[in-house]
Amino acid sequence: MSFSVAVAGASGYAGGEVLRLLLSHPDVEIGALTGGSNAGERFGSLQPHLVPLADRVLEPTTAETLAGHDVVFLGLPHGQSAEIANALPDDVVVIDCGADFRLTDAAAWEKFYGSAHAGSWPYGLPELADQRERLARATRIAVPGCYPTVSTLSIAPAVAAGVVTPDVVVVAASGTSGAGKAAKPHLLGSEIMGNASAYGVGGTHRHTPEVVQNLSLLSSEQVRVSFTPVLVPMPRGILATVSAPLTGALTADEAHDLYAKAYADEPFVHVLPPGTWPQTKSVTGSNAVHVQATVDEAAGRLVAVGAVDNLAKGTGGAAVQCMNLALGIDEGTGLTTVGLAP
Amino acid sequence: MSFSVAVAGASGYAGGEVLRLLLSHPDVEIGALTGGSNAGERFGSLQPHLVPLADRVLEPTTAETLAGHDVVFLGLPHGQSAEIANALPDDVVVIDCGADFRLTDAAAWEKFYGSAHAGSWPYGLPELADQRERLARATRIAVPGCYPTVSTLSIAPAVAAGVVTPDVVVVAASGTSGAGKAAKPHLLGSEIMGNASAYGVGGTHRHTPEVVQNLSLLSSEQVRVSFTPVLVPMPRGILATVSAPLTGALTADEAHDLYAKAYADEPFVHVLPPGTWPQTKSVTGSNAVHVQATVDEAAGRLVAVGAVDNLAKGTGGAAVQCMNLALGIDEGTGLTTVGLAP
Amino acid sequence: MSFSVAVAGASGYAGGEVLRLLLSHPDVEIGALTGGSNAGERFGSLQPHLVPLADRVLEPTTAETLAGHDVVFLGLPHGQSAEIANALPDDVVVIDCGADFRLTDAAAWEKFYGSAHAGSWPYGLPELADQRERLARATRIAVPGCYPTVSTLSIAPAVAAGVVTPDVVVVAASGTSGAGKAAKPHLLGSEIMGNASAYGVGGTHRHTPEVVQNLSLLSSEQVRVSFTPVLVPMPRGILATVSAPLTGALTADEAHDLYAKAYADEPFVHVLPPGTWPQTKSVTGSNAVHVQATVDEAAGRLVAVGAVDNLAKGTGGAAVQCMNLALGIDEGTGLTTVGLAP
Amino acid sequence: MSFSVAVAGASGYAGGEVLRLLLSHPDVEIGALTGGSNAGERFGSLQPHLVPLADRVLEPTTAETLAGHDVVFLGLPHGQSAEIANALPDDVVVIDCGADFRLTDAAAWEKFYGSAHAGSWPYGLPELADQRERLARATRIAVPGCYPTVSTLSIAPAVAAGVVTPDVVVVAASGTSGAGKAAKPHLLGSEIMGNASAYGVGGTHRHTPEVVQNLSLLSSEQVRVSFTPVLVPMPRGILATVSAPLTGALTADEAHDLYAKAYADEPFVHVLPPGTWPQTKSVTGSNAVHVQATVDEAAGRLVAVGAVDNLAKGTGGAAVQCMNLALGIDEGTGLTTVGLAP
Repeated sequence: MSFSVAVAGASGYAGGEVLRLLLSHPDVEIGALTGGSNAGERFGSLQPHLVPLADRVLEPTTAETLAGHDVVFLGLPHGQSAEIANALPDDVVVIDCGADFRLTDAAAWEKFYGSAHAGSWPYGLPELADQRERLARATRIAVPGCYPTVSTLSIAPAVAAGVVTPDVVVVAASGTSGAGKAAKPHLLGSEIMGNASAYGVGGTHRHTPEVVQNLSLLSSEQVRVSFTPVLVPMPRGILATVSAPLTGALTADEAHDLYAKAYADEPFVHVLPPGTWPQTKSVTGSNAVHVQATVDEAAGRLVAVGAVDNLAKGTGGAAVQCMNLALGIDEGTGLTTVGLAP
Repeated sequence: MSFSVAVAGASGYAGGEVLRLLLSHPDVEIGALTGGSNAGERFGSLQPHLVPLADRVLEPTTAETLAGHDVVFLGLPHGQSAEIANALPDDVVVIDCGADFRLTDAAAWEKFYGSAHAGSWPYGLPELADQRERLARATRIAVPGCYPTVSTLSIAPAVAAGVVTPDVVVVAASGTSGAGKAAKPHLLGSEIMGNASAYGVGGTHRHTPEVVQNLSLLSSEQVRVSFTPVLVPMPRGILATVSAPLTGALTADEAHDLYAKAYADEPFVHVLPPGTWPQTKSVTGSNAVHVQATVDEAAGRLVAVGAVDNLAKGTGGAAVQCMNLALGIDEGTGLTTVGLAP
Repeated sequence: MSFSVAVAGASGYAGGEVLRLLLSHPDVEIGALTGGSNAGERFGSLQPHLVPLADRVLEPTTAETLAGHDVVFLGLPHGQSAEIANALPDDVVVIDCGADFRLTDAAAWEKFYGSAHAGSWPYGLPELADQRERLARATRIAVPGCYPTVSTLSIAPAVAAGVVTPDVVVVAASGTSGAGKAAKPHLLGSEIMGNASAYGVGGTHRHTPEVVQNLSLLSSEQVRVSFTPVLVPMPRGILATVSAPLTGALTADEAHDLYAKAYADEPFVHVLPPGTWPQTKSVTGSNAVHVQATVDEAAGRLVAVGAVDNLAKGTGGAAVQCMNLALGIDEGTGLTTVGLAP
Repeated sequence: MSFSVAVAGASGYAGGEVLRLLLSHPDVEIGALTGGSNAGERFGSLQPHLVPLADRVLEPTTAETLAGHDVVFLGLPHGQSAEIANALPDDVVVIDCGADFRLTDAAAWEKFYGSAHAGSWPYGLPELADQRERLARATRIAVPGCYPTVSTLSIAPAVAAGVVTPDVVVVAASGTSGAGKAAKPHLLGSEIMGNASAYGVGGTHRHTPEVVQNLSLLSSEQVRVSFTPVLVPMPRGILATVSAPLTGALTADEAHDLYAKAYADEPFVHVLPPGTWPQTKSVTGSNAVHVQATVDEAAGRLVAVGAVDNLAKGTGGAAVQCMNLALGIDEGTGLTTVGLAP
């Protein structure tokens, strides 16, 4: 059984990561690779780490070049997915790595993205509420943002169990690949190395409403999220520190047990043993999210930490996981919980 | 006018930074350099960046080798400062870069450090409450911890003005030099690069009670601090994200104005213009702290960010600033607000 | 068909990389994991990226714990392999990631390693001369050093073809994992980041005679190698610049063609298209070596550059490749030419 | 005594470094700061580490804005310096950080830069041959390239003494700031971190003829230089490995002595003690070049290593050093041999 797969935006970081994973997926055949301004270039000069595809040539991103595949991954700039998706037949599995179809609330979309809402698709976080069922055999899937994936999974068990009020503070240290491959001076290596910087502070980052939306599935109370992203000098990885006020007495052991039980059956969420804390390097290149939680009695808060590879489980790995669900094959095919370290 | 200065623990990061700054200080003469197990070694092989001292030899840290100086800096492991300090005459200015004399609360000391409390000295953060007056002409000074310096200064104006409840959440991304020069496997470059990791989560880090102590000087309410340090791959710098619930309506402009006024006369606290956020690289090697604050209305919080060089203003620069105050010379002598970038 | 495999030194970098690769190898079952001082520890706390092995416990490295496997990998400190290997039956495949059995010349061994020569085993670089034949069905294999692998492959075609005199200059920039996981102050992240440093200069590095040995298989002239390793701030990867004087007229195109032909049938040596140059990131985690060569007419030299992941094809990947040859299964099983980037 | 100084290209890395140093220079007053496309912007948003200049506004780079200063530094793209310089009075000290006036050989210029030769100015490497005399009271000075500075100083004593043939191989690992602040995809942090890459291989890099020119001042033989630059993941610093064939017997001790004597009176060239090797971090932010040399008997070569901060002594520091010579003040004013580490 082999499915043909096309990747739009193959020269970007999301597209490249999808392809890195597909190259070791036993059930797919890689079809068209498309791009924008660099269409026509040899793929080896764009993604030199994907050696088996080096002699391919990037085609332009159009409905025509993408036609005739079982699955199409979209790694396009915001706002460009709808047109392409609408031009593809309904039975083609379209998996959007961008933001266009993530939010259900049109008002939130318009406030944070400043454009008309294109609608919403099944949300590609199988570990959240009943999303796995919604993703099985779906033909349109919105891959979650990288920050929302790790932020949500880090606090979800506590919110769902009601041991915290959903008044959540997230500070997430992120590598730079989340900002994409477009060249901007503040993302130059010279600026990034040796530097930690905050951006999108004060609730303005576009991933904020996505975390609110996710946690609202788990709580009947009004969810509030204070989200601060911090850029740190590494290419990949997000380490999210997520805390919320306790609603009552809870021990650190109880917090850990709560998490261990919540994720006992999840193949890609790894709750660390008590006393050990996540680090991004353990999940580099892997589809795993590592989480840990404890209680700060003096501060009256549950504090959880999660680590994810923003490009793998944070984008490309989630996309492949969703593809597997959509195609009805084993959810973990072509994915691993083994990271690349050191 | 020239003061003779000795540095105990000269081969460590704190001692090395004090010396880096003293080498451009116009009013001091560098006397004894002392160390522990590496006493007897050529200094150039221990701190090769301090070229003018390369041919010095490290002496053992004893009351004798440190005797006869106007000022003695201590960069010693926890618990070793008291004995040395007691052996030095009362009129020698002793500046401890370690933690031994920072906390006034013996119970907090014992809880977090697990040893008997040695007492407390004037706290070397001139920008906090009335500390500057207490430091003038002092002969015993405890240099603040690096995390407490930036955490305190980032939220102090808001706490002092009562616009937030002192229920503070701090997540601070730190470079690795704060962990010192002792070789431990998890601090190897191979482990650190490409990696962000949390440690001391859940209120267990020793700098937590120090932040509580500082903010308690500014508020009559009970202060609570949830503090999470995150290790990120850079040698120097801390970026602290500090937030707290608003007590009432406040605009982002008002938050900024509050900070601008609070620090208007502080030579080493630089409030950035509205809309720009701190980055650690701007303060590398400098004695400046960069801060910015805004309001997240939806989350009901004031969010502030501060950047400091953990070794400079976070340790060695603060130590020199305190020395200047103790000696009655201009507070900024030998210090700069200019960072090394890129 | 499934072979049982043990790894001695499983908590180190070489052992960890062998295991990372074995975890996706279809034909092996991972047996004993052994170590030295950390025997008895939970494996998840030692190699947290190898999630499927997290609940294993490290056993002590003895002939007993290693007995009963089809294959034993040794990732031990220099000088410890012989005793273990001698205690294992002759028909067990023993693959030594250390240096003990790499050099055929006892005098060279004693000069560079300062101890008695243990002998030599088939040398695990299938791409060199007739090594592939010697490795097929071998039961004792010495995995090459990381520097020699990339240095040799970068200049081998030119030496073999006689277009250069074998008077070779190698300067190789290396990531830090090659130095191992033992904690030493100069390998701390604080020291490594932002720093490039030379070591083992002047022909004193232990990998020098190994490069000489390799190139001597390809030339009847006396081989001389000036080798300088440079430590640069990255966890993995070696970029070797290798040059030698031309023996006659040669164009850049001819140099490229020579390399393209020499490696046309090698699955893991990737000669880049003319005008593009290797970078280590393209081979991170992969078993590929990327090479390119050109001619500097004014200087009268052929200049080649090679990139390798020192832990993958430079150690653990080569080890697995050799295992495949020894077991008579497809040489590339469980290995990839796809790198992890960015 | 205070000289007024203008900086053209103040928003770039070279201009920023000149300003960082001028801010602690006792004899200058900083006048006009000019730029290209970002003229009109607040300087604090362009160079946030230069706090004392934060409220300045960048002016356009024209002869008018630069008029009326005693000294003008030019940090402009190649080819733009001549026009500005010609418009400034002859008695204004003009110091060009760019390449336009470095090469004396018009043919070499045209070959490597592909444009008409603008002429040559006194070459700002006081440590080379008789350049110091030529720089005293000069009013036009070409600051050397960063690679040529460290490459030249690393091998100059050996070439001048005739102990090597001037058939030199240079491989230099460089931080990224040498590539400037213009945003290009391959210089993004995501691409740079974890990556070492070669470029300008085969004698094509523009700094090659500059090294040839410098060494030709020291030898009557024909100089040949094989130069390979390697980009490594750090913002600043170059570590050059430079070797050449010995002309006769020479011991390592003799090589070291030769270097120690050659640089005994140079304030900014620091020959390390025997057995210790340069690292870039020791010279970060400093005007020092650290060098060491030894002999590889088996390879028949002298091998030297030099470290420089490409932006400091490699550009901005050299520019200030030259300004001091031109103005007739102490050569080391405002400069330091103390580096910023860790």
